[in-house]
Amino acid sequence: MANSKYEYVKQYELDDTLLPGCWIVVRIDGKGFTKFCDVHGFEKPNDKRALDLMDACAAAVMTEFPEIRLAYGESDEYSFVLPRSTDMYGRRASKIVSLIVSCFTANYVARWPEHLPGTPLASTPMFDGRAVCYPLDSHLRDYLSWRQADTHVNNQYNTCFWALVKSGKTPTEAQATLKGTLSGFKNELLFREFGINYAHLPEQFKKGSVVVRQKAMVEVKQREDGSPVLRERALPAILHCDIIGDGFWQERPHLLAP
Amino acid sequence: MANSKYEYVKQYELDDTLLPGCWIVVRIDGKGFTKFCDVHGFEKPNDKRALDLMDACAAAVMTEFPEIRLAYGESDEYSFVLPRSTDMYGRRASKIVSLIVSCFTANYVARWPEHLPGTPLASTPMFDGRAVCYPLDSHLRDYLSWRQADTHVNNQYNTCFWALVKSGKTPTEAQATLKGTLSGFKNELLFREFGINYAHLPEQFKKGSVVVRQKAMVEVKQREDGSPVLRERALPAILHCDIIGDGFWQERPHLLAP
Amino acid sequence: MANSKYEYVKQYELDDTLLPGCWIVVRIDGKGFTKFCDVHGFEKPNDKRALDLMDACAAAVMTEFPEIRLAYGESDEYSFVLPRSTDMYGRRASKIVSLIVSCFTANYVARWPEHLPGTPLASTPMFDGRAVCYPLDSHLRDYLSWRQADTHVNNQYNTCFWALVKSGKTPTEAQATLKGTLSGFKNELLFREFGINYAHLPEQFKKGSVVVRQKAMVEVKQREDGSPVLRERALPAILHCDIIGDGFWQERPHLLAP
Amino acid sequence: MANSKYEYVKQYELDDTLLPGCWIVVRIDGKGFTKFCDVHGFEKPNDKRALDLMDACAAAVMTEFPEIRLAYGESDEYSFVLPRSTDMYGRRASKIVSLIVSCFTANYVARWPEHLPGTPLASTPMFDGRAVCYPLDSHLRDYLSWRQADTHVNNQYNTCFWALVKSGKTPTEAQATLKGTLSGFKNELLFREFGINYAHLPEQFKKGSVVVRQKAMVEVKQREDGSPVLRERALPAILHCDIIGDGFWQERPHLLAP
Repeated sequence: MANSKYEYVKQYELDDTLLPGCWIVVRIDGKGFTKFCDVHGFEKPNDKRALDLMDACAAAVMTEFPEIRLAYGESDEYSFVLPRSTDMYGRRASKIVSLIVSCFTANYVARWPEHLPGTPLASTPMFDGRAVCYPLDSHLRDYLSWRQADTHVNNQYNTCFWALVKSGKTPTEAQATLKGTLSGFKNELLFREFGINYAHLPEQFKKGSVVVRQKAMVEVKQREDGSPVLRERALPAILHCDIIGDGFWQERPHLLAP
Repeated sequence: MANSKYEYVKQYELDDTLLPGCWIVVRIDGKGFTKFCDVHGFEKPNDKRALDLMDACAAAVMTEFPEIRLAYGESDEYSFVLPRSTDMYGRRASKIVSLIVSCFTANYVARWPEHLPGTPLASTPMFDGRAVCYPLDSHLRDYLSWRQADTHVNNQYNTCFWALVKSGKTPTEAQATLKGTLSGFKNELLFREFGINYAHLPEQFKKGSVVVRQKAMVEVKQREDGSPVLRERALPAILHCDIIGDGFWQERPHLLAP
Repeated sequence: MANSKYEYVKQYELDDTLLPGCWIVVRIDGKGFTKFCDVHGFEKPNDKRALDLMDACAAAVMTEFPEIRLAYGESDEYSFVLPRSTDMYGRRASKIVSLIVSCFTANYVARWPEHLPGTPLASTPMFDGRAVCYPLDSHLRDYLSWRQADTHVNNQYNTCFWALVKSGKTPTEAQATLKGTLSGFKNELLFREFGINYAHLPEQFKKGSVVVRQKAMVEVKQREDGSPVLRERALPAILHCDIIGDGFWQERPHLLAP
Repeated sequence: MANSKYEYVKQYELDDTLLPGCWIVVRIDGKGFTKFCDVHGFEKPNDKRALDLMDACAAAVMTEFPEIRLAYGESDEYSFVLPRSTDMYGRRASKIVSLIVSCFTANYVARWPEHLPGTPLASTPMFDGRAVCYPLDSHLRDYLSWRQADTHVNNQYNTCFWALVKSGKTPTEAQATLKGTLSGFKNELLFREFGINYAHLPEQFKKGSVVVRQKAMVEVKQREDGSPVLRERALPAILHCDIIGDGFWQERPHLLAP
């Protein structure tokens, strides 16, 4: 039962190296989360507990893989950014994507009870993932702007949609009311009909979540007398701020540094 | 904040379709499981609880993705076989691999307490994954034979190694004792020195685990009087049998059917 | 001016190995040949001189690359078949495709005067190429059947079209006459209106060209007395026969042999 | 004989799109040119006629494909640069590579008699090709610097080698003399032993060939009186200059422009 005569099958594993010198974005996305949200009674249009769980998982992924520069998430998706120079797993696409997805999923299940106490996990949460390469810094920024603009567009729509539905409209009527309307109309609708000032909604809902590493003092051990020994560490921090404008990037030049 | 000006970044998502007409094997593999086993005090050389957990996760993956024909696992790895004809997610490699990895990982964390009661999960279990295409039935069978032959070789070595270590040898001494020895020598060593008849060890350790769908009667609902309504369903069943010889395949011609 | 500091750029050359164990088909196709035919006054619907030139180039490619099993051509395209087992250039797609295209093109220009004497080459003949993998023998046969069925469909249409145009119709009128008509109608049209029995047209036009290696005695050197020394060699031979049915393959079992 | 039942085989043509937003370099390389040079009696270490033929073919390729920004060649290889923004053939690798190779080869054969009159083509010249993507301008410049540094290193070595061989050394002795020597030693050897001042050798040999488009007045038609109508056109021009330093690029900012 020697395995040498079968080993030729290894040659069928083709190379899937991602082009060197490019930014790598790994985007993961919940599978069938519309149903998953229903099954678990997530609050509409946003369930802060579920978003916090996503953010906590993203932070855990960044702790596990120190090469990740930053992450951006909204709803049931998260994007992780690896720098041009990374040689993580030889830049092999399937290795990088599968491990990030696996780490995120493991944390999602493990941290669920802490974030949604009293709601047992009733179905299997799953995320797909893919890797995309971006040659230029401007491409990477446009990618992240694309996701954050999407967050805004979706959130504004969903806020209106669920306000209408909760007020008694059917989903079909709510859709019809909103079809083809502009941003200004939606803001007015929210204010006029439901007394909701869109600008005052939580930033987490409107802007999504950005995870960056920030320096913080952390206890690394205790002295004999029980006093803590502190060291500066770069820990994942979750922000809910604009990343489309230049400000965010100018304050953090290391994010795009070579 | 329209997202249309950023949408061009979607063009950077390149196609990763797997060649049609081939068998697709998705192999997942535990990341850093040597350490993971130590942290959780897994029994050496095999921890039945941990292997049962792997098998349960594989069965769950097969329930989730009905297109998977069979699966084979050993130690911290599992291979899932999709038929030539599958159009699952348009045969996109990253989609297929990431979802199987995610489903497996979610189940691994969720089912951990049931399989290892009293052992809290102390680190994040993670699995990488990759897809490989095999053009011919003979390639697929050789792939699976390769994994099962590997199971045998590893298990025999590990059984000897841990018997020697448990008897007082250092790991280095145990390695030296086994270096370059043949299968027959190892069997004799086990029997002579430790009274272990290798042939009597559990099939799960020696052969690994095969998951196939088998017809079974399952309760699909209850009648008003409480009596069960049974229907025949093809459910994942876990076997520990030889898959290198022809017997397994002759008994299950549907496995290789077009 | 040492080049070592620049050598990192070699890492950007990504692997493009074709899946082992599959048939490889390299199809080359004339670029802008409608215009190329006009410029050189090719006879319509078929110019035997031009087809013979294509066939001669294909035979030259097969002589240059002994691993090619067979080739099939029609009009301005040719397909070359490499066996499952080939390791030609490590199965690198760009290497295989570019060399076959280059060899074909070089021969096309070099052999032009011999096949079209009196017609100087007035523009640059160019061919693109691509490689496609086929896992099963049946896929390969279906591929070749696809091309030969295409030859028939095109040739029958073009024969009608040019008969109509030569008889005074405009191209638009000819198109309108043929639009949506079936094979039987076209044969009748040719016979009734133009006295052409489609079945009697040259096989080269109706069936395209198949290039296989056939054993032949060839002079390898001369003896001192001037008499030839003959040896059996497998030389490319050009056939115009059916390759859709089983007959062709049953007579040449080596073509599909492993 | 409908071809519809076979058309499924088209699905096996997988996508090979090159990453958008990157520079594309297509490098072509002569197959077996050591022997090809011997067969045709090329002068050693450089045959100006053969280099001029290569340059003429590169210029023809640039005329045929207006999207090519510049080209660089030495010996039997040439690199063609397509801009980041190109959508030539949808950036499909095999299409781009095969057509450039085909165009080059066709010109090589067609222009041979003009450049090597009296030397009939005795074997088939062939070129392989590959496409490589470079994300940054600096990568592209480093790629071109790599090739030009290679030209220098090879030319200096070959000049010494053939001087030694022509002076009566065997190839093995010449190799031994040069093994491990530095650039300065080689220059001295040439001067001291053979009276060759390396700096005075033709720039084409030392620097290779750069093809860029330069504005020139060309006759586009004739007036009735026979006088020419001139228009400004950007025509391929062949230079033999340094492209490693900044000067070349500063004088031609359009080459790296977006």
